[in-house]
Amino acid sequence: MKGISILGSTGSIGCNTLKVIEHLGDFRVVALGAGRNMEKFAEQIARFQPELVSVEDQDCAETLERELHRVNATVPKIDLNSKGLEAVATHPEAETVVSAAVGAVGFVPTLRAIEAGKRIALANKETLVMAGELMTRAAERSGAVILPVDSEHNAIHQCLKGESKREVSRLILTASGGPFRDWSKEEIAGATREEALNHPNWKMGEKITIDSATLMNKGLEVIEARWLFGFDANQISVVVHPQSVVHSMIEMIDGSIIAQLGVTDMKHAIQYALTYPARRENCLPPLDLSGLSDLTFEDPDTERFPCLNLAYEALRRGGTTPAALNAANEIAVAAFLDGRIPVSDIAWLNAAVISEHETKAADTLDSILDADRLARLAANQFLAVKAQAGVSQTV
Amino acid sequence: MKGISILGSTGSIGCNTLKVIEHLGDFRVVALGAGRNMEKFAEQIARFQPELVSVEDQDCAETLERELHRVNATVPKIDLNSKGLEAVATHPEAETVVSAAVGAVGFVPTLRAIEAGKRIALANKETLVMAGELMTRAAERSGAVILPVDSEHNAIHQCLKGESKREVSRLILTASGGPFRDWSKEEIAGATREEALNHPNWKMGEKITIDSATLMNKGLEVIEARWLFGFDANQISVVVHPQSVVHSMIEMIDGSIIAQLGVTDMKHAIQYALTYPARRENCLPPLDLSGLSDLTFEDPDTERFPCLNLAYEALRRGGTTPAALNAANEIAVAAFLDGRIPVSDIAWLNAAVISEHETKAADTLDSILDADRLARLAANQFLAVKAQAGVSQTV
Repeated sequence: MKGISILGSTGSIGCNTLKVIEHLGDFRVVALGAGRNMEKFAEQIARFQPELVSVEDQDCAETLERELHRVNATVPKIDLNSKGLEAVATHPEAETVVSAAVGAVGFVPTLRAIEAGKRIALANKETLVMAGELMTRAAERSGAVILPVDSEHNAIHQCLKGESKREVSRLILTASGGPFRDWSKEEIAGATREEALNHPNWKMGEKITIDSATLMNKGLEVIEARWLFGFDANQISVVVHPQSVVHSMIEMIDGSIIAQLGVTDMKHAIQYALTYPARRENCLPPLDLSGLSDLTFEDPDTERFPCLNLAYEALRRGGTTPAALNAANEIAVAAFLDGRIPVSDIAWLNAAVISEHETKAADTLDSILDADRLARLAANQFLAVKAQAGVSQTV
Repeated sequence: MKGISILGSTGSIGCNTLKVIEHLGDFRVVALGAGRNMEKFAEQIARFQPELVSVEDQDCAETLERELHRVNATVPKIDLNSKGLEAVATHPEAETVVSAAVGAVGFVPTLRAIEAGKRIALANKETLVMAGELMTRAAERSGAVILPVDSEHNAIHQCLKGESKREVSRLILTASGGPFRDWSKEEIAGATREEALNHPNWKMGEKITIDSATLMNKGLEVIEARWLFGFDANQISVVVHPQSVVHSMIEMIDGSIIAQLGVTDMKHAIQYALTYPARRENCLPPLDLSGLSDLTFEDPDTERFPCLNLAYEALRRGGTTPAALNAANEIAVAAFLDGRIPVSDIAWLNAAVISEHETKAADTLDSILDADRLARLAANQFLAVKAQAGVSQTV
């Protein structure tokens, strides 16, 4: 039995990871970290009996204990907040760590897991967006293998198998285009929370679903791809493919395009990361090829979706700029989900924060955490000024 | 400079191969074999100056000499018929042999090149259809590498890179569906020579274009794939994809599908075979991904296109049956091109010949050549009887 830890076990990726683990049958869950959904977390603990768990704070820990007693489950060791997540990430019996905590909270624990030489199944893209250089250097030193769980990067990882990197001319990330693909700029500006959360193809958490609606998710993925695969920004393209059947592609110097296709279920990529380099039968229905019709591909519209270009700009500026963009975006998405700004203001806030951001080298944890903190401050200040002014600004 | 021989240099694949060689710049053409187009052959000889050439018969040789004198080209050594092709195929300075002679005529020369341990760029699918077992065994003994030039098999070769064969659940050959994809059975029965030769996507020779119209080409490709990649008939599927953008795919045991996409130009696959395992920039425009729309996939209709199932049946019966089917089909296509039978009678003739064929082990050259000869005899007899009866039969 191979030991496994999951950071963010009650989220969408976390729950799917546990389903994959049940299907595979040869993994033992040694540690779990979760956010605030203690009812679901108690069920998971009762079912998988990890030795160690981590929750956000003491309140959560108390709620969790009550829930565990209610279902007559053994109470494991309970650690708190980011230190607790670090303990989960570095549990000595975990060979594999699934990094699926949402947002910046998963950053330091994932770095610790990389430093400890674990196999990392990476769903927390913020980790590489914030600190791609730091993370990839740490992985080189420790020998940690980072396997992407994002369907696009997972697809590219599959396409790159057996190919020589210098014969790859570019990576092509597919984007569904999100719920607003056909909407005008004005319609997007007036979109409701429910409309933004109504992703056409993928069932995911709220943060990433909003990022998909603004195409910031694809922008973050461009940055992630840069670090996962070692290609420059100008070698990473995005193509809108609304059907999400082709999960991503690579183009070779001889013009050949290698693509990975599959069902739109995260369990595929999760299992690939857990069993790599082997592939095993999974619990999903196969893709029904003969039923596929009207697959289309089009260039993204960066006029209506300016977040994508902000990500390219951050990547070109380099250093701490991607970390600042990521932080600004987390504040912006939260503000939209709380009803404080329209969805179209997410790009405005992100642009405002990175235009003021003083780019520094991203070679230490502190420089990155500083950039993250300052960008959050700046974002909140912009929001406060805007709330006072009571007017809506758009990019 | 790497020495190269081409069997069938004046055909579609042969001409494209010479264009690729001009583009690559580091191949030297040492020997060429051609059919009956002596004007074009003389141009090629003047341009590439091979040491040895082969033509069909003495008449062709005399015509060729005249043509060469007309363009003031040096006359190389000229050999005749299949012995000449064998000399081209086994030229000691040829590291690579492009096997692109149309039909059964390329069979023995290709076997000789395999026995001589050459790198084989294989476009003559009849070779593997007739004698897959013999050819693959000979390649194992001599260490010859066989690289497919058919776009479908070339695509599968690319998709299989880096994958473990036992983790592949099936090969999926794409078929354009040909010019009759949307035609009724009755309309197909009345199709003219020109309509059958009007392939929607690929510019190829006449024989293969007719085979594409009947889907026999895809059937022959199923048999070819069986020997190239070592998968059973039930692990090889066909899906109709009229746009011919996806050149073929493989499905893995975890449900993942890896596909190769590209422009519909044979020069891609030819160059891949010549430079493998390296890839190099080619002379083709890249595939314009963002302009792709309405890619579709559907199951083939074996009611209107019975040739596909005949190929599966021949593969399951094994031994000399595929060789008999191939021979019958050559006679049938020639009869259609000569206006002697409607295109729909190709399947009838093929079915009639293999139903009477006495399957034997295909483990010697003689047994295969016997099967080929007997099937041609039988096919011609069926045609003669039919011509006397003066009535049209359909399957």
